[in-house]
Amino acid sequence: MTLTGHSFLGSKRAPDTSQTFHVSNPATGEQLEPAFHSASKEDLVKAISLASSAFPAYSSISPETRAAFLRTIAENIDTLGSEITPRMMAETGLPEGRCQGERGRTVGQLRMFADLIEEGSWVDARIEIAQPDRAPIPKPDLRSMRRPLGPVAVFCASNFPLAFSVAGGDTASALAAGCPVIVRAHAAHAGTAEIVASAIQAAVGECDMPEGTFSMIYDADIDLGTALVKNPGIKAVGFTGSRAGGRALMDAAAARPEPIPVFAEMSSVNPIFILPGAMAERGETIAQGLVGSVTLGAGQFCTCPGLVFAGVSENFETTLKNGFSEVAAATMLHAGIHQNYTKSLTELQSQPGVETIEQVDSSKGNNAGATILKASASTFIANPALNEEIFGPSSLVIECGSKEDMLAAATQLEGQLTATVHGTDEELAQAGDLLQTLEQKAGRLIINSFPTGVEVNSSMVHGGPYPATSDGASTSVGTGAILRYTRPVSWQDFPESMLPDELKISNPRNISRLINGSPEC
Amino acid sequence: MTLTGHSFLGSKRAPDTSQTFHVSNPATGEQLEPAFHSASKEDLVKAISLASSAFPAYSSISPETRAAFLRTIAENIDTLGSEITPRMMAETGLPEGRCQGERGRTVGQLRMFADLIEEGSWVDARIEIAQPDRAPIPKPDLRSMRRPLGPVAVFCASNFPLAFSVAGGDTASALAAGCPVIVRAHAAHAGTAEIVASAIQAAVGECDMPEGTFSMIYDADIDLGTALVKNPGIKAVGFTGSRAGGRALMDAAAARPEPIPVFAEMSSVNPIFILPGAMAERGETIAQGLVGSVTLGAGQFCTCPGLVFAGVSENFETTLKNGFSEVAAATMLHAGIHQNYTKSLTELQSQPGVETIEQVDSSKGNNAGATILKASASTFIANPALNEEIFGPSSLVIECGSKEDMLAAATQLEGQLTATVHGTDEELAQAGDLLQTLEQKAGRLIINSFPTGVEVNSSMVHGGPYPATSDGASTSVGTGAILRYTRPVSWQDFPESMLPDELKISNPRNISRLINGSPEC
Repeated sequence: MTLTGHSFLGSKRAPDTSQTFHVSNPATGEQLEPAFHSASKEDLVKAISLASSAFPAYSSISPETRAAFLRTIAENIDTLGSEITPRMMAETGLPEGRCQGERGRTVGQLRMFADLIEEGSWVDARIEIAQPDRAPIPKPDLRSMRRPLGPVAVFCASNFPLAFSVAGGDTASALAAGCPVIVRAHAAHAGTAEIVASAIQAAVGECDMPEGTFSMIYDADIDLGTALVKNPGIKAVGFTGSRAGGRALMDAAAARPEPIPVFAEMSSVNPIFILPGAMAERGETIAQGLVGSVTLGAGQFCTCPGLVFAGVSENFETTLKNGFSEVAAATMLHAGIHQNYTKSLTELQSQPGVETIEQVDSSKGNNAGATILKASASTFIANPALNEEIFGPSSLVIECGSKEDMLAAATQLEGQLTATVHGTDEELAQAGDLLQTLEQKAGRLIINSFPTGVEVNSSMVHGGPYPATSDGASTSVGTGAILRYTRPVSWQDFPESMLPDELKISNPRNISRLINGSPEC
Repeated sequence: MTLTGHSFLGSKRAPDTSQTFHVSNPATGEQLEPAFHSASKEDLVKAISLASSAFPAYSSISPETRAAFLRTIAENIDTLGSEITPRMMAETGLPEGRCQGERGRTVGQLRMFADLIEEGSWVDARIEIAQPDRAPIPKPDLRSMRRPLGPVAVFCASNFPLAFSVAGGDTASALAAGCPVIVRAHAAHAGTAEIVASAIQAAVGECDMPEGTFSMIYDADIDLGTALVKNPGIKAVGFTGSRAGGRALMDAAAARPEPIPVFAEMSSVNPIFILPGAMAERGETIAQGLVGSVTLGAGQFCTCPGLVFAGVSENFETTLKNGFSEVAAATMLHAGIHQNYTKSLTELQSQPGVETIEQVDSSKGNNAGATILKASASTFIANPALNEEIFGPSSLVIECGSKEDMLAAATQLEGQLTATVHGTDEELAQAGDLLQTLEQKAGRLIINSFPTGVEVNSSMVHGGPYPATSDGASTSVGTGAILRYTRPVSWQDFPESMLPDELKISNPRNISRLINGSPEC
């Protein structure tokens, strides 16, 4: 398809505007065509108005029809695969295999949510049966289930140009819930965004969805995104990106006359704790695994382990040093990320007590040199700057000579997406205090493995206390992500015929429910 | 028991402070003994420190033991019933039956949460079984369930001195979830609070709970409450009260370095729509029901219907007028509520186009005169002031001559706890657009009944979009209230022995779970 660079306002494309931008190939610096037109404020208002108009109809469509819509989006994306991959590679510097793999995850997520809403039990249907002769007052008929919130604003992630962008997890879960979506495209992969948006727009038409079910706006700047969050028509926000960006949206949403929920996945250093027995038994193997986990995708994953707490053996450090030295410098997603990586790393290296174990040369273009550093436990505990996420292929090893050091360090941590412990069976059985401390800090606890590689299923919690996410009770990955864009509603004394199918006594959708507080089955 | 007027800091009582206050009997104006000592900042820090220390142990106690603790609190409150009732009557002006009934609800809630956690399925346990030979990469073992957030601050409501105060729904659900609680007592019923707090404190001792599981602070002012919300040791907030008060806590929590969730139940006018057929068929009966619902408990319920939209028949208006004229003036809970009621009502009566149908004389003390007013649909739509909650026994009837008037009015509404429609079967079947609009505005939809009388069970949603609550996805009443103080946590590749019982394959707690995304049973 020929890219035009215009925002999607329902079934129409926005007109030319005076503010345009180009995407650059991060590997070559080459400027890619076409020019993309930042949406105007009028375009934004139009998109939101379309979404608001679409909501009553879209939220009432049967789950089967919505599931078919999600599957059509997935099919359309697969059909456009041969166009997506080259553009995505040019825009992101990511290798072909990753682009294809991420497309697989993206369509997989859409199909997972289609299956979820077709099965239907996720709505948490509850029925309390009336007792007209209860004393002293009759018990009314009361039934509840989750319903969609309204139009959702989705901010695309730079590090998942497909799986957490235009048709990514936020969009898929919001559409599955019954919420129209307005996507704010990421300017660094605007062309990939246009192809995917066209796949969604085509599905809207093919499946006869209300026009405003999907829109996507381009913006070179951040103003329009803030205006989107502040607009009274928007009822929730999904965001994956930096802590500063996420916090700005949280603050804007909290300051609205009608505050709305922001589900921002922002910042995590994903600490790894290596207990002494595991270090002695298999320090080398753990070090090899760590090199792979830190440098996977040039470290551009939310779950990249940025802090390692261990009583470091010589073997472990040597393996790390050698492993990092062999990591090929990799192109980062865009110049901004590369600049931030270089700057943050230099700042960390300038902190007192921080030593560099190994740093790969990264003098060329937007290449990131993998870097492994170390510091003492007392240095870490005294300096909050060592707690900060560096987005890229680097990790900081904190020398923890004792269990007390580890516990003190764990207590010091901010909220995290993940926390990992390596230990022998015996050690782990004795590590209850460490694991309990980490449970208070993280959304996902991992034993003897690595945090990168995020399963997309019913048990995944990709969330965690602030600043990992804005709302530690949410997950942005897995089936639980749909809950973010819904709220429970009760119906009291409604005639059977006027209730949603999920709440009819006859249970026509055959879902699992609570009846008078107990599972029906 | 002899009241001493000191805050509860774990098992100790706070020392005297220079800032003291007394409770007044709202019916007589009499000053009640003793003096209550506002907690000092040091007292507050001590209570929070105790709660933080208690959290690891308290959150790890078995559900059976926590349930026994909740039941012991309930028993202790019942035992103190003969002391609670006279003090509560003196502090609130509420009649004896209401005081006893509310005690029944309070202990009922504690026992309901005890049953809920003993049964155990509420934790939403999910197990994804490992597939070590899955291609291209192995599937890890991944399991998730809800875990408590940490110490919770609970702000007592003035209008439910027992059921939404010291041992009320917020405290019961937080303790059930595994969170220590610090209560900020309401100064208007500080003595009732002391008796109930002593019942909880005794249960902490009797059940060997960690000392910091429960504390309660007195404060004549609002500063200490704000300091409580801003303290980094507090991880969530429960509040029932005014919109201004709730919003202030929301803003304080959102501005923290680590923002935390605030579950504030604040403000609702609980609109009632009466369709023409119902008006013609049973306008008089509906009017009688409305008089009862508006004036119940001197209108001091969150669910008091403050707006009625109808094509008003003469019969309906006459019945309302006569009904209101016969309502005995009732003492309000305290002088502040009474002043606000009088002031808000006077302001509403001064709005152009607002007429008073009937107003009961309320010249004596803190008596509230029941008041019924009317205005046209165009007056309502043009003036947002008519949308505001007046806390007390008043309601405003909006003359809606057409279905279009009703829809326009419904669209205009802010978020509500409830929305009610009265109609004939035929009318209701045609009222899909109105009901759909109301679904977007309210947490609970009611047909042919009244919003007062809130069932406490699994299907109740006592929540709704802002400003009804701070978080429209929450409920403060019913079993769902426990979810507010929890978040999901994932465990990846944990040895069976190290997992919580709820997540062991053998299912020792015999709870309903999801296995690979499907219900286990």
